[in-house]
Amino acid sequence: MVLLEFSMSPMDKGESLSSYVARILNYIDESGVKYKLTPMGTILEGEWDDVIGVVTGCFKLMEQDARRISVNLKVDYRAGSQSRLESKIEKVEKILNKKLST
Amino acid sequence: MVLLEFSMSPMDKGESLSSYVARILNYIDESGVKYKLTPMGTILEGEWDDVIGVVTGCFKLMEQDARRISVNLKVDYRAGSQSRLESKIEKVEKILNKKLST
Amino acid sequence: MVLLEFSMSPMDKGESLSSYVARILNYIDESGVKYKLTPMGTILEGEWDDVIGVVTGCFKLMEQDARRISVNLKVDYRAGSQSRLESKIEKVEKILNKKLST
Amino acid sequence: MVLLEFSMSPMDKGESLSSYVARILNYIDESGVKYKLTPMGTILEGEWDDVIGVVTGCFKLMEQDARRISVNLKVDYRAGSQSRLESKIEKVEKILNKKLST
Repeated sequence: MVLLEFSMSPMDKGESLSSYVARILNYIDESGVKYKLTPMGTILEGEWDDVIGVVTGCFKLMEQDARRISVNLKVDYRAGSQSRLESKIEKVEKILNKKLST
Repeated sequence: MVLLEFSMSPMDKGESLSSYVARILNYIDESGVKYKLTPMGTILEGEWDDVIGVVTGCFKLMEQDARRISVNLKVDYRAGSQSRLESKIEKVEKILNKKLST
Repeated sequence: MVLLEFSMSPMDKGESLSSYVARILNYIDESGVKYKLTPMGTILEGEWDDVIGVVTGCFKLMEQDARRISVNLKVDYRAGSQSRLESKIEKVEKILNKKLST
Repeated sequence: MVLLEFSMSPMDKGESLSSYVARILNYIDESGVKYKLTPMGTILEGEWDDVIGVVTGCFKLMEQDARRISVNLKVDYRAGSQSRLESKIEKVEKILNKKLST
């Protein structure tokens, strides 16, 4: 299973980007892929082809609006089929035996 | 104000890394800097020198254990002093007029 | 056209990774996509589907060997069909009117 | 020794960014730190404090011009004092026994 975090921004639309981000988030939300929005990006979980497919869909949407686009993407693949969207944080909290800011 | 997301991993310790991550998270938690742990990294908020100082502290800790370390870091600076740790997500939800998965 | 830089590493193979990197580079070199190897990653140039297709091929290769894989990827898309693999550096050198270390 | 690759862009200056990049590159070139400019970023080599110091200097320069700045940064630390700016590529070429596109 793959955890994939990405952010995607138009570079030619000035400093306020939330309307562009919203359009993409709507697409992700309707894709059916498991995800989690953070203040710095969106984390998708699934098989490689599925999560990369969602990123590709987002890019094709944003390409309609923007002349320059920047994408950052980070993948953490681990063999096996267990979800880690919740468990990675729980493990760290268990080791430290305290609640962290999440 | 700066939002800084980073992840830091030893490359020479096998596939299970949560004990190394925990040590760093403990350091961050005690640093007093505002932060948020996600499944893919940790987001710090503050002035440049403060958040970079915390990352430097984490690196010096991990350097004691590991012969090879990989760090990924992304900064989103915006002029002004308002916190965006919560507001970035709220803005997107408001535009879409629905709750997203966070 | 898209400039895409990426790096891909197994997390469970110790500190020396050049044999894994080599296998992937061989795949890229034979893919026919325009690329440039740097000390920190590989830069591909082409249409979105082509460059993402090469990254996917690399992932499927490495997945055969590794139980945990980390991928970092950055895209700079700009409307138009001109290659920027050489021209981005030349522009900066022209503005500064000096040769930089490349 | 640390290899650190980074890119830094104003988000509020439209699609053409080479004049901002040039100003930063001039700063790096005069810093005395070993570096290599690529089409997607700049790779610095040195001790953690030195290379992070250069990135901080670049940020403080760009902060004078821009209301929103995006920074991406990747570190590859390896214990020992050997330079890897050239040797990482040479190793891969040696394993494959062919010249790659660099």
